[in-house]
Amino acid sequence: MPDFIPHIGQLFSGKHNIITDVSSVKVGHCTLNHGELQTGVTVVTPHCGNLFCDKVPAAATVLNGFGKSIGLIQIDELGVLETPIVLTNTFGVGAMAQAQIRQSIRENPQIGRDWSTVNPLIFECNDGYLNDIQAMVLDESHYLQALSSSNTFFTQGAVGAGRGMSCFELKGGIGSASRITTLKSGESYTVGALVLANFGRLSTLTIAGKQLGTLLQQRLACQVPQIKPLTEEKGSIIMLIATDAPLDARQLKRLSRRAGVGLSRTGAFFGNGSGDISLAFSTAYTLPHQTERPMPAVAFLHDALLDPLFQATADCVEQAIINALCYAETVDGYNGHRRTALRDLAPDLRNLL
Amino acid sequence: MPDFIPHIGQLFSGKHNIITDVSSVKVGHCTLNHGELQTGVTVVTPHCGNLFCDKVPAAATVLNGFGKSIGLIQIDELGVLETPIVLTNTFGVGAMAQAQIRQSIRENPQIGRDWSTVNPLIFECNDGYLNDIQAMVLDESHYLQALSSSNTFFTQGAVGAGRGMSCFELKGGIGSASRITTLKSGESYTVGALVLANFGRLSTLTIAGKQLGTLLQQRLACQVPQIKPLTEEKGSIIMLIATDAPLDARQLKRLSRRAGVGLSRTGAFFGNGSGDISLAFSTAYTLPHQTERPMPAVAFLHDALLDPLFQATADCVEQAIINALCYAETVDGYNGHRRTALRDLAPDLRNLL
Amino acid sequence: MPDFIPHIGQLFSGKHNIITDVSSVKVGHCTLNHGELQTGVTVVTPHCGNLFCDKVPAAATVLNGFGKSIGLIQIDELGVLETPIVLTNTFGVGAMAQAQIRQSIRENPQIGRDWSTVNPLIFECNDGYLNDIQAMVLDESHYLQALSSSNTFFTQGAVGAGRGMSCFELKGGIGSASRITTLKSGESYTVGALVLANFGRLSTLTIAGKQLGTLLQQRLACQVPQIKPLTEEKGSIIMLIATDAPLDARQLKRLSRRAGVGLSRTGAFFGNGSGDISLAFSTAYTLPHQTERPMPAVAFLHDALLDPLFQATADCVEQAIINALCYAETVDGYNGHRRTALRDLAPDLRNLL
Amino acid sequence: MPDFIPHIGQLFSGKHNIITDVSSVKVGHCTLNHGELQTGVTVVTPHCGNLFCDKVPAAATVLNGFGKSIGLIQIDELGVLETPIVLTNTFGVGAMAQAQIRQSIRENPQIGRDWSTVNPLIFECNDGYLNDIQAMVLDESHYLQALSSSNTFFTQGAVGAGRGMSCFELKGGIGSASRITTLKSGESYTVGALVLANFGRLSTLTIAGKQLGTLLQQRLACQVPQIKPLTEEKGSIIMLIATDAPLDARQLKRLSRRAGVGLSRTGAFFGNGSGDISLAFSTAYTLPHQTERPMPAVAFLHDALLDPLFQATADCVEQAIINALCYAETVDGYNGHRRTALRDLAPDLRNLL
Repeated sequence: MPDFIPHIGQLFSGKHNIITDVSSVKVGHCTLNHGELQTGVTVVTPHCGNLFCDKVPAAATVLNGFGKSIGLIQIDELGVLETPIVLTNTFGVGAMAQAQIRQSIRENPQIGRDWSTVNPLIFECNDGYLNDIQAMVLDESHYLQALSSSNTFFTQGAVGAGRGMSCFELKGGIGSASRITTLKSGESYTVGALVLANFGRLSTLTIAGKQLGTLLQQRLACQVPQIKPLTEEKGSIIMLIATDAPLDARQLKRLSRRAGVGLSRTGAFFGNGSGDISLAFSTAYTLPHQTERPMPAVAFLHDALLDPLFQATADCVEQAIINALCYAETVDGYNGHRRTALRDLAPDLRNLL
Repeated sequence: MPDFIPHIGQLFSGKHNIITDVSSVKVGHCTLNHGELQTGVTVVTPHCGNLFCDKVPAAATVLNGFGKSIGLIQIDELGVLETPIVLTNTFGVGAMAQAQIRQSIRENPQIGRDWSTVNPLIFECNDGYLNDIQAMVLDESHYLQALSSSNTFFTQGAVGAGRGMSCFELKGGIGSASRITTLKSGESYTVGALVLANFGRLSTLTIAGKQLGTLLQQRLACQVPQIKPLTEEKGSIIMLIATDAPLDARQLKRLSRRAGVGLSRTGAFFGNGSGDISLAFSTAYTLPHQTERPMPAVAFLHDALLDPLFQATADCVEQAIINALCYAETVDGYNGHRRTALRDLAPDLRNLL
Repeated sequence: MPDFIPHIGQLFSGKHNIITDVSSVKVGHCTLNHGELQTGVTVVTPHCGNLFCDKVPAAATVLNGFGKSIGLIQIDELGVLETPIVLTNTFGVGAMAQAQIRQSIRENPQIGRDWSTVNPLIFECNDGYLNDIQAMVLDESHYLQALSSSNTFFTQGAVGAGRGMSCFELKGGIGSASRITTLKSGESYTVGALVLANFGRLSTLTIAGKQLGTLLQQRLACQVPQIKPLTEEKGSIIMLIATDAPLDARQLKRLSRRAGVGLSRTGAFFGNGSGDISLAFSTAYTLPHQTERPMPAVAFLHDALLDPLFQATADCVEQAIINALCYAETVDGYNGHRRTALRDLAPDLRNLL
Repeated sequence: MPDFIPHIGQLFSGKHNIITDVSSVKVGHCTLNHGELQTGVTVVTPHCGNLFCDKVPAAATVLNGFGKSIGLIQIDELGVLETPIVLTNTFGVGAMAQAQIRQSIRENPQIGRDWSTVNPLIFECNDGYLNDIQAMVLDESHYLQALSSSNTFFTQGAVGAGRGMSCFELKGGIGSASRITTLKSGESYTVGALVLANFGRLSTLTIAGKQLGTLLQQRLACQVPQIKPLTEEKGSIIMLIATDAPLDARQLKRLSRRAGVGLSRTGAFFGNGSGDISLAFSTAYTLPHQTERPMPAVAFLHDALLDPLFQATADCVEQAIINALCYAETVDGYNGHRRTALRDLAPDLRNLL
């Protein structure tokens, strides 16, 4: 647990300042930490029922499409997700898709028979700096382990899919945050974010508006003299947004687009090689798979009331990225590569801001 | 080889009326025909060099996004493909993605190390009517077999990824066609199409403008009395377009959008459950992976000259669908299901038109 | 009134086989027929209340974006229309936008003051072959005339915005149609279409599946020997879809995409210079401008039930195009140009099919 | 001229730190400053030749589509602009479109006759707080005046289209900036931005990473006690990006997406009512209207080299927004409304950062 993490923005955070402050959401990790294998799987579950039967409204934005995720075409068309959301490394997408299909069939044996097929939803970042990504070690067992460990409480930093990730040339990984919003109309809603942060060059790192890049570059050059500054970004960031506000898929797409605002404020500029993708979902209602069941009659929020939710999304994502940096520990991995933790490089972070 | 196949449209076909009339393109199949396992893999290779090092301009259109393909996000961003194109069944996407990653690494060991990761490109349709899709039998060996069998000549119909596919409640599968176009400016180019046809209800089947649905429904009800007409479409179609015309990714996207024209003319209306996707690529030039190598200086076609290519795309796709129907044989598969071949249902097709 | 118009598809049409079969929809024309000025304005009104205060769910698809319409950016973002829909010629868009703003302000003086601004929605095609389009004669008076003449009954063919339009090198213009659908779940809904048809080359004209292009080209060459076949398409088509089914904006976008199916079946291939755009709206509910008013709680249709609506959209659009051709009369206009009516070229249409 | 403007980012600015540092670009204003009429027109001209005959590659991104601009559909399809770019108020779009059509016809009498029609390109923000926007005073004369005053040098702040604009509840308007980039491959290119800034709430204003919102809100409450803080954003921002780098439309779209990064850093979160749109164009080459003329053979930049251009775009846009705030003077307008200049509210800006 870091000593100090700055609070981003003017809104209050939820009870635990994590995505599971949005009720019914759960998060689980499976972490591999074996020498040159530094990787893992993180699963975010919108609700603990049968997701295929009771789908969740969702929408995504591709800020920069240098990425290999699977599942977004169908979400764009139908506006729902029907599986948990999996985060993993780039070369684990295929194995996780198969694992997710198998799990969905176990829960719903009609899939691909009487019912249509299931749409796996897997996001990825490239952890090839710290992890021997060519080893392709992830399989169904890691998915099931992450799934079964899912809980309201979960760790942040160099865990799960975040184990091998780098962020601003420091150790990145999983970060999460939440914000409470109160609309003009009086209702109050929670917005939560969870990011897999694996992007950025140290020279542009900005924490709570303060540009720390140059200073930290100098410190890093002293601590790890052999490291070369990044010349080509091969990173990415996945940003998941959850809310209990009653929004439809069109509105969730609007929310997901604001994830880029928080990302921008940390010093990112969506580099060419960075696959930057966000997805937003609502837990306010579900949509039935079967046409025999009734469709819910939902009074959605008026678009003119959405500003607090947009602001909360931007702030949550920025906070989640800072949290990923603050929680991560230093990790050594593939080929002698090391990523230094922000807490080791800037134990005096409080004073730097 | 069917006795009779109507020629679609007013343009001449290429030498063999298949996609490989576009020079350097090759197609290979791996077909599984074992009782309840009726499935397979088809690979389309734009050129026989190192595709990761010499990428091919490409763009896709999602006509209806009820689909689970992988690879389109990056193609949309960067406008290139860097692997062969794989067609398979819906639950084979993960295994094929892993196979493609491994093959790319074998050819380019720097992938995921010094170089960025590779973007697998896998399209799918649901063959669960004829194939025990839950068995998930496809693996890397099937990919490699399809790849190694790639050639200028290839079979159409119930082969490769098309083995278990249904089309208009008849036997569907792989179809291909080509057209020669001559622009106002005098140059001549070839457009080729290859489809994986697995969509449609018999009642709306239209061949060369002639609505044969009602007639063929009656015949089918006599031949296979136990079959129930489709109430919910769970199909899809993948339409690949190749051309040797010098087009950029924006223009190839325009081409890919015209695939829907040919599809529409066969009686399709992009049903809710049908994942209808097209992708167009050009073989006129390649783009280097490495920044050290020079970028080509290509004089693209003027957009105002594209009409013949648009028309050829529409006609090719329509022809390829008709060919898939005409070439396919009757197949029995999973759970006693049968799909009757058009040639068996309408040996008198010539007279019906 | 033409003697004979073929019925497209297998669904029944609504009472009058026009878009106003969808209750509350009205259509009005203002037609200019003065020598070289052959142009006009057509207005489609989703309901007769205050559209700015009670907005209508809507979504559009750009099949080919060679077009100058205004208003689609905001519809794409917010999923509503807040004015009547105006059709006119390409150079009339600016004047109609101003007319529409003024009319909205008259009805809602708060616009641009206490309330946000209004989003004009104007579609256009280029009638420059028959109309002296550079004269830019249309102004607010023509908009008001079309608006005030709006009614459940309206004429088709060479009227309103369709006065100067060409279609398949024949006389085009306004066409409309409707279809009744019955869903698997038992409910019945109406789909209506209205098109402004100004696209296509005669050589590819297809009516009810029958390719009549070559035959009609020969006849035309006899009747109007001085006419040169089109070498470059400078046309367009606007396709409006109305339905009383309870759909949200995402679903209406899916509907609007099926307009291209009907268009394709007439022989179009979305030529380079043809701005082909469709827009679908629902009259099943409205959305309030003011946040103080309650949002409706609507149970939308399940996506898996949409196929009959997709089919109806495709058939309606095809029918509306054929109707535009069948209703239009021969028109002489700018620079001695003439567009022959289909009824004059093919009085024997019934026998040709 | 303000005393002090902070320099944003680590890159050097071009010679004059304005968009016209990209050679051949010119900017002209027409400013209306008459009591309650506080509005105007700004024209950005990519090159001083015949833009319709020699089109410029361009692409746009709609960050938030609550906007009424015209011209983007065709730019998205064809990837070129063929007129100067006009900025004005929301209700002036129609008049400016007509003015632009007339000007294009004067330069190219074949437009709408032998040639296709022209695509007007007009962007807008709502200046209804300071300007009597319902008066709709702008006409062709204002367009021509802006066009004829176009020059390499131009003023920033409360001028042209920026005359009546508000930004962070202060006086906004026109701002511009430029940056010089050097690619890994050694070439050097200029990126320039010009913004029409009319967005944001004071509470979130961030200048050079420093959150000044709360402080400035207190100062403003003292100076202008009767003003109420904004409860609903009715603003917008238009961000134009010019570069001399050889990019195609796909790459320019990538550039235009990075405009949102700079915008985000100033404290914006793309509020519901804010129409946030960016457009990027390249002056490195032109594309001929006529098919008889040869297409240029351009070696585009490799995408893996684009990071410096992305960073420059983000920094330029942020700088241009800050410049708009710094250059603007206090303006009184419609209904006694006043927008205070940042320089009047924070003459000590240097010390606040």
